Amino acid sequence: MDKSELIGLLEAVKRGEIGVEEAVGRLKSAPFEELGYAKVDHHRGVRQGAGEVVFGERKTPEQICGILRSLRGAGGSDIIVTRLSPESAELVGREHELDYSAEARLAVAYRTAGRPLQGSVVVAGAGTSDIPVCEEAALTAEALGSRVHRLYDVGVAGLHRLLSHLELLNSARAVVAVAGMEGALASVVGGLVDCPVIAVPTSVGYGASFGGLAALLAMLNSCASGVAVVNIDNGFGAGYLASMINKASL
Amino acid sequence: MDKSELIGLLEAVKRGEIGVEEAVGRLKSAPFEELGYAKVDHHRGVRQGAGEVVFGERKTPEQICGILRSLRGAGGSDIIVTRLSPESAELVGREHELDYSAEARLAVAYRTAGRPLQGSVVVAGAGTSDIPVCEEAALTAEALGSRVHRLYDVGVAGLHRLLSHLELLNSARAVVAVAGMEGALASVVGGLVDCPVIAVPTSVGYGASFGGLAALLAMLNSCASGVAVVNIDNGFGAGYLASMINKASL
Amino acid sequence: MDKSELIGLLEAVKRGEIGVEEAVGRLKSAPFEELGYAKVDHHRGVRQGAGEVVFGERKTPEQICGILRSLRGAGGSDIIVTRLSPESAELVGREHELDYSAEARLAVAYRTAGRPLQGSVVVAGAGTSDIPVCEEAALTAEALGSRVHRLYDVGVAGLHRLLSHLELLNSARAVVAVAGMEGALASVVGGLVDCPVIAVPTSVGYGASFGGLAALLAMLNSCASGVAVVNIDNGFGAGYLASMINKASL
Amino acid sequence: MDKSELIGLLEAVKRGEIGVEEAVGRLKSAPFEELGYAKVDHHRGVRQGAGEVVFGERKTPEQICGILRSLRGAGGSDIIVTRLSPESAELVGREHELDYSAEARLAVAYRTAGRPLQGSVVVAGAGTSDIPVCEEAALTAEALGSRVHRLYDVGVAGLHRLLSHLELLNSARAVVAVAGMEGALASVVGGLVDCPVIAVPTSVGYGASFGGLAALLAMLNSCASGVAVVNIDNGFGAGYLASMINKASL
Amino acid sequence: MDKSELIGLLEAVKRGEIGVEEAVGRLKSAPFEELGYAKVDHHRGVRQGAGEVVFGERKTPEQICGILRSLRGAGGSDIIVTRLSPESAELVGREHELDYSAEARLAVAYRTAGRPLQGSVVVAGAGTSDIPVCEEAALTAEALGSRVHRLYDVGVAGLHRLLSHLELLNSARAVVAVAGMEGALASVVGGLVDCPVIAVPTSVGYGASFGGLAALLAMLNSCASGVAVVNIDNGFGAGYLASMINKASL
Amino acid sequence: MDKSELIGLLEAVKRGEIGVEEAVGRLKSAPFEELGYAKVDHHRGVRQGAGEVVFGERKTPEQICGILRSLRGAGGSDIIVTRLSPESAELVGREHELDYSAEARLAVAYRTAGRPLQGSVVVAGAGTSDIPVCEEAALTAEALGSRVHRLYDVGVAGLHRLLSHLELLNSARAVVAVAGMEGALASVVGGLVDCPVIAVPTSVGYGASFGGLAALLAMLNSCASGVAVVNIDNGFGAGYLASMINKASL
Amino acid sequence: MDKSELIGLLEAVKRGEIGVEEAVGRLKSAPFEELGYAKVDHHRGVRQGAGEVVFGERKTPEQICGILRSLRGAGGSDIIVTRLSPESAELVGREHELDYSAEARLAVAYRTAGRPLQGSVVVAGAGTSDIPVCEEAALTAEALGSRVHRLYDVGVAGLHRLLSHLELLNSARAVVAVAGMEGALASVVGGLVDCPVIAVPTSVGYGASFGGLAALLAMLNSCASGVAVVNIDNGFGAGYLASMINKASL
Amino acid sequence: MDKSELIGLLEAVKRGEIGVEEAVGRLKSAPFEELGYAKVDHHRGVRQGAGEVVFGERKTPEQICGILRSLRGAGGSDIIVTRLSPESAELVGREHELDYSAEARLAVAYRTAGRPLQGSVVVAGAGTSDIPVCEEAALTAEALGSRVHRLYDVGVAGLHRLLSHLELLNSARAVVAVAGMEGALASVVGGLVDCPVIAVPTSVGYGASFGGLAALLAMLNSCASGVAVVNIDNGFGAGYLASMINKASL
Repeated sequence: MDKSELIGLLEAVKRGEIGVEEAVGRLKSAPFEELGYAKVDHHRGVRQGAGEVVFGERKTPEQICGILRSLRGAGGSDIIVTRLSPESAELVGREHELDYSAEARLAVAYRTAGRPLQGSVVVAGAGTSDIPVCEEAALTAEALGSRVHRLYDVGVAGLHRLLSHLELLNSARAVVAVAGMEGALASVVGGLVDCPVIAVPTSVGYGASFGGLAALLAMLNSCASGVAVVNIDNGFGAGYLASMINKASL
Repeated sequence: MDKSELIGLLEAVKRGEIGVEEAVGRLKSAPFEELGYAKVDHHRGVRQGAGEVVFGERKTPEQICGILRSLRGAGGSDIIVTRLSPESAELVGREHELDYSAEARLAVAYRTAGRPLQGSVVVAGAGTSDIPVCEEAALTAEALGSRVHRLYDVGVAGLHRLLSHLELLNSARAVVAVAGMEGALASVVGGLVDCPVIAVPTSVGYGASFGGLAALLAMLNSCASGVAVVNIDNGFGAGYLASMINKASL
Repeated sequence: MDKSELIGLLEAVKRGEIGVEEAVGRLKSAPFEELGYAKVDHHRGVRQGAGEVVFGERKTPEQICGILRSLRGAGGSDIIVTRLSPESAELVGREHELDYSAEARLAVAYRTAGRPLQGSVVVAGAGTSDIPVCEEAALTAEALGSRVHRLYDVGVAGLHRLLSHLELLNSARAVVAVAGMEGALASVVGGLVDCPVIAVPTSVGYGASFGGLAALLAMLNSCASGVAVVNIDNGFGAGYLASMINKASL
Repeated sequence: MDKSELIGLLEAVKRGEIGVEEAVGRLKSAPFEELGYAKVDHHRGVRQGAGEVVFGERKTPEQICGILRSLRGAGGSDIIVTRLSPESAELVGREHELDYSAEARLAVAYRTAGRPLQGSVVVAGAGTSDIPVCEEAALTAEALGSRVHRLYDVGVAGLHRLLSHLELLNSARAVVAVAGMEGALASVVGGLVDCPVIAVPTSVGYGASFGGLAALLAMLNSCASGVAVVNIDNGFGAGYLASMINKASL
Repeated sequence: MDKSELIGLLEAVKRGEIGVEEAVGRLKSAPFEELGYAKVDHHRGVRQGAGEVVFGERKTPEQICGILRSLRGAGGSDIIVTRLSPESAELVGREHELDYSAEARLAVAYRTAGRPLQGSVVVAGAGTSDIPVCEEAALTAEALGSRVHRLYDVGVAGLHRLLSHLELLNSARAVVAVAGMEGALASVVGGLVDCPVIAVPTSVGYGASFGGLAALLAMLNSCASGVAVVNIDNGFGAGYLASMINKASL
Repeated sequence: MDKSELIGLLEAVKRGEIGVEEAVGRLKSAPFEELGYAKVDHHRGVRQGAGEVVFGERKTPEQICGILRSLRGAGGSDIIVTRLSPESAELVGREHELDYSAEARLAVAYRTAGRPLQGSVVVAGAGTSDIPVCEEAALTAEALGSRVHRLYDVGVAGLHRLLSHLELLNSARAVVAVAGMEGALASVVGGLVDCPVIAVPTSVGYGASFGGLAALLAMLNSCASGVAVVNIDNGFGAGYLASMINKASL
Repeated sequence: MDKSELIGLLEAVKRGEIGVEEAVGRLKSAPFEELGYAKVDHHRGVRQGAGEVVFGERKTPEQICGILRSLRGAGGSDIIVTRLSPESAELVGREHELDYSAEARLAVAYRTAGRPLQGSVVVAGAGTSDIPVCEEAALTAEALGSRVHRLYDVGVAGLHRLLSHLELLNSARAVVAVAGMEGALASVVGGLVDCPVIAVPTSVGYGASFGGLAALLAMLNSCASGVAVVNIDNGFGAGYLASMINKASL
Repeated sequence: MDKSELIGLLEAVKRGEIGVEEAVGRLKSAPFEELGYAKVDHHRGVRQGAGEVVFGERKTPEQICGILRSLRGAGGSDIIVTRLSPESAELVGREHELDYSAEARLAVAYRTAGRPLQGSVVVAGAGTSDIPVCEEAALTAEALGSRVHRLYDVGVAGLHRLLSHLELLNSARAVVAVAGMEGALASVVGGLVDCPVIAVPTSVGYGASFGGLAALLAMLNSCASGVAVVNIDNGFGAGYLASMINKASL
């Protein structure tokens, strides 16, 4: 709740337009709808300038349906549902209009047709196995209105594959660098571009990759400036942040 | 064995009412029944003022049945069985009177009907996915005689959801704060209330949550005073302790 | 800010007694004094029913003096300063009235004379080397108004030392169990008493104790019910929570 | 080396204006000066739109002097030197014009006088002990041309301190959230603002903070969208990235 | 190869009784039979005074059969096969005479009938869930000729269960202490007996037990003297060592 | 792209034989074919003197088929596909000529018949359970043209098994030492031979082997000189490097 | 307190020879003397058949003096003080008769002159740097009455150094194997001898030895039977246990 | 001891030229000299084709002097002493002829004058701070007879610095890649060259570099083929192995 809203509310109280008890009630209950298992936040879109997001993991299809119903009822659109299994997508899709990618395990509900995509986010992935996380990032950024360029299988062991796309990289307003194993892509990209790089370690690898820990630590220790890191396999988070940066710089 | 019991026993020996060998026997064998695979403790209820508890994980339904038989035979009621799978619950329920929650994977055997619940424990959970652990805490506290208020999906990324329930939080004698991912709920709650907060990290999350480690460490490092932590996903332990605190302050 | 304060403020606005801008200002600036390097919270004592606490580590003596001046200026007393080095204590003591324990590295500023101590908190420590952490807990609880019994060097490798004090343990309203190395004291005490046990792992040990990690993990995995854990070496946190529990049950 | 430069070079070869050997030489040696112990990169400023940066840790004062001489010789200004001890700063300052902060252990060499600062970066710090890392971020962003607002000691255990500055937070184009211990500040801030949040875990804490690991993991697992993380105590990296985002959105 | 064998061989060469090439051959090939996938050691029984042992995990039933055939062919008996699944046991049992415990996942092949058991090894287990590891230890020690007393469900949260068996504990020549969760049993037993204690951490537990790590660290840090530790869930190793100690002291 | 190629290309531009745009195109696109999900590198064989390698894990059979088609189309042979499941091998084998080992989960596609194997690589494995990793190493080295000697089940607990093969070990130009559990084989072998030893930790073990971490750390800390380590279970990497060393020394 | 003592006490009560209150007192206070900072255990020597032990780390010289005074007053001799710095040893030695080894940081107070040493314990150390831990083990075993043979610098990278002492190794009743770095010595020795091996990982090493963790994990995963492990650098614990085993088998 | 030596010894016994006892003695005592604190290995040079190496850490100057005396007495030269502090070097240099580098903390004793260096080892280092480890590698390889090219400050954040030296890299027979922080250099180099790459993680970095762990894990997970890893900061080990590979391929 920002200052102008607070002032507005207080002034309405002062003018006697709304009572004290009601003001307290508004302060408390306005921003969300209580579903019992969830408190659906109808103001986040306004507050943060982005569509709603539902974290699908460990939620039942019924719970997801209920949350979508609440959001849609409040006029929501382009609602992102992450980590949604194909089975849940099938069930949720019976009630709600879903645009689902099985590869990224991500759906966009009630997508706005014909919405123009703006700016430029590059999603660069080190290997073929990293593509699902890349797609989660790319689809997220697109759902939030950003134009995305995909650059896959550009791992550092074959530098020429990356270097041949320097022009594209340098045209980006934000780059998402996705890599498992040793995670070196983030540093190399970070040294080549002059825009923010959001690094996503993935759990691709085995043995001493320890489920993505190796890539995570490497990315946190990047010797390149302008690089920040999100959680392992968190394509959504990177796509969200990259889109936010992209759109702010339009 | 406390001092008065020891004195009583020794005086009986002194008066010749019981023989030395018998006294040694009593000292040794009284407090539990030997089942081979378990030594059922019939005195714990007396010693600790709480119903019996059976840790169900890795026990066969047969073992659980045997332990319940022993406890019930000694007059036990409101016996909590934790981490009980639906399959085991089904089997154990054939022999014993069980009140089972599949969500919390917890049963109460031989529940006392119409028992009044006292005081106030608030169980606050950060996200929908944390509800099973919340329920384990809530059902435990209720089985031990505490009144419980549930406050779910109040994670810190939408502070207004939590702040709108300040009054309820401040009426509690103990709060159980349940959160996975970054576990920040414990610190925020700890800064808002003036009663003990028992923090429960959950394994909800992925990647660098490392099965709940991130939330556990965050909660242990809470900058708020009056917060203590139990094991990851240990809703039972938090509910037990919160109920103990709640009832002591009645 | 609780509900009654909010209602009061809103009603004053409604009655025109205070202006809107002023109300906004109060909502914002009331609870703390801005020192630049710190925002001193004058309401915490009221909110949480306890004296103020200053975390001394990494603060300069000048910063600590400034904070104490602010708190004292607002009428504070019995202010606990933790992790205060002897050198800093010496410097701070020149301006402020301090009661300092070098062993616990803890000071109480402006202690209220003749204040009666109430209830019973037992602080049990496993070894001689754990005494500094024990004292931090004990002095904290005393500063907050609790009567404390100290039970030191009662590690589980010599059980009779602990068992000989069962009566004292069972008279406690809360027990603080302090142990390094394998941290087994918490579980053994937890099995003997019927009040909450706050376990404090210490960094006492070497090699695979990994700075207290071994004791921490052991305590989190305690098979006894009614045990919760605070950070390694956090005697203050345990004493604070134990005192809170003790006083609630008076 | 981007495409247009490559084309220009190739065309010059084609026209016979420069020989093949010379072209190879230019491709190889242009971008840096060889000092033996360092290869000073004179093009980074151009490539990345930011002043030069020297990572001072484990470099001798002589090495730092040499690098500054090379950069200054090539016309560099506003050169940031990080992790510079007071002793080294004193020695380097004899040869070079330095603006040094002992608190942040950061110097700006050959600062451009009267340079206007633009946009708005908020640096929010949880505790007094986090201020050195905050200052490293703030001074970095200022050296790169961003206007910075400092918001210190706003940890989540006293939420009102943070909430009273919502207006300032919401005016930012990028927020740097700095916290040790449980690192919850990043999530809370991330839920309140609609601009990117760069989270910096610090090594402030003890015991199970494990040198900042607890805060790092918490921040990586933030349940708020729009948050990315840099290395523990890496104020420089966060300030650099926040400034990059701030300036892109002007 | 010990000194006397070496001398004997060399003297035979000196006397010309065996040729040089043959001596080299003997030095190389005597001690084992080559199966391709395994080199079966026929001398270990002689060298180490114990029956053969086959580590069954990740070996196919065919490989185990082949190794048993080789050992039996060389006159082996009382051969222990550890970590043998019921399915493999069924298959191996068609060719070889097996005495199999599904609980301990351990078989003894070609058991010597009527072999007297000697001395006294106590296997103490903390909880019902630890019994499989206890049985692996107990059956191993019995296969090696030791008399074993089982003492199960004697965890430290109910000390009287353990203390009531002090006499039995004190009659042991070696104690195996098996515990998961916080692993405190080893320290408590170590403080009560005057014989070696071999501690076995188990993977029983959840959350911060990290698969037995908590118990392992606790046991390594035991404050009791005379305690050593084997790998998590390594009942075999503890039973083997305890039996070795038991028999040496007959 | 090495210097002579660069010079050649530039001279062709100078002589006007190829245009500038075409040169830029060649610099960018020559080395790989774009498949969308992969960028197949046709020059690696030339650059690194070895057949192509496809990392099969997490790739669909369709993706692997596509990559093989691209490589074969460019004249590739002896193409190694690692971490290929039997199911995938079956499917890929329908389109491509595969030589598949289910034990090593490795295939060689389009193997050159009658190719002579050269030099000597010894692959030494500690236990029967390590054989799959050993075979991955051995088959890789053979596919790359090296003669391989297999020495399995030579773990250090029965030293004579290893010592009896000293002559073979000393004839090697490179040794691959494969071991799980405590990983001691690498150090013992490293002390016996005078050629490079490539150590491969395996995930064989349980409990405190932590998925191969114990062996990995042991091998990294080897007190023998001339030992280097690859990732856990990375038989391919060790076989590749050993073959590279073997062939360089022919 | 064992059964016979308990019976004796109870019978004395029965016969009226001692009163109930007195019996309770004896049960409680007999075994130790209260020093405030320590509870000195006078019965441990009797219970465990070994001299007293004082863990010197983090105890002040005054505390150690007090404990020694108490033990000596009760007739103690051959009292081991571990982890005693030279400075403390100097101070303690002014009041008490100490036999101090600076290398092992261990003292024996009031050593019994001319006491015969029995049996055979071999202490084998991998490198010169491991000698201090070896000496702690050796001096402990000697103080407890065992004859010790030292075998230093026999690391596995030069196997012949160890193999040349096979005869000595095979004459031992217990072997202490001390090694840092990769800790392979324990496995190799465990495969060569037929007596218990107590393995001591040391913190000797750097980098990925992680303060002895590498050696610890290696030893816990030893593929040799008959090996158990104590804490990192715990020479005392290993010497104590080895001596216990040695003397039991006399 | 290799086969031909064994045969020679046995034949001498057969011919009666040496007695049995003497043969046993030779087998046992030949390869090393017993100094008490060390067993100096005089045969390693012969066995492994390299000069002797003394690991200097935690050895006293006296011990190092004694070992050098023994080695020199047996005719040794070009003896490498690693991890030698300047203070120790000064003391050892009084008795022995030392060529000492304070930067690399490495000495070569009794260096052979005018020895030609052969082949080509490239030592590539990521940053200025990695130079000490680079120098340890380079000086080691030179002491063993390899020609070394140094390529420092070529970290991946400024790729052009590395790429401008492709020709030099491709002329190497072995590359040592030294990097701290994210350790990406190893992968990038591994993708550019066709010779073995020995990767050395360094402890350069802070925070989540965890003393070199980040670089270590990254290097172990390198997506490039032909890369193996040594311990953190182990420049010696990498230089030794690289030299071994270089010289084998001459």
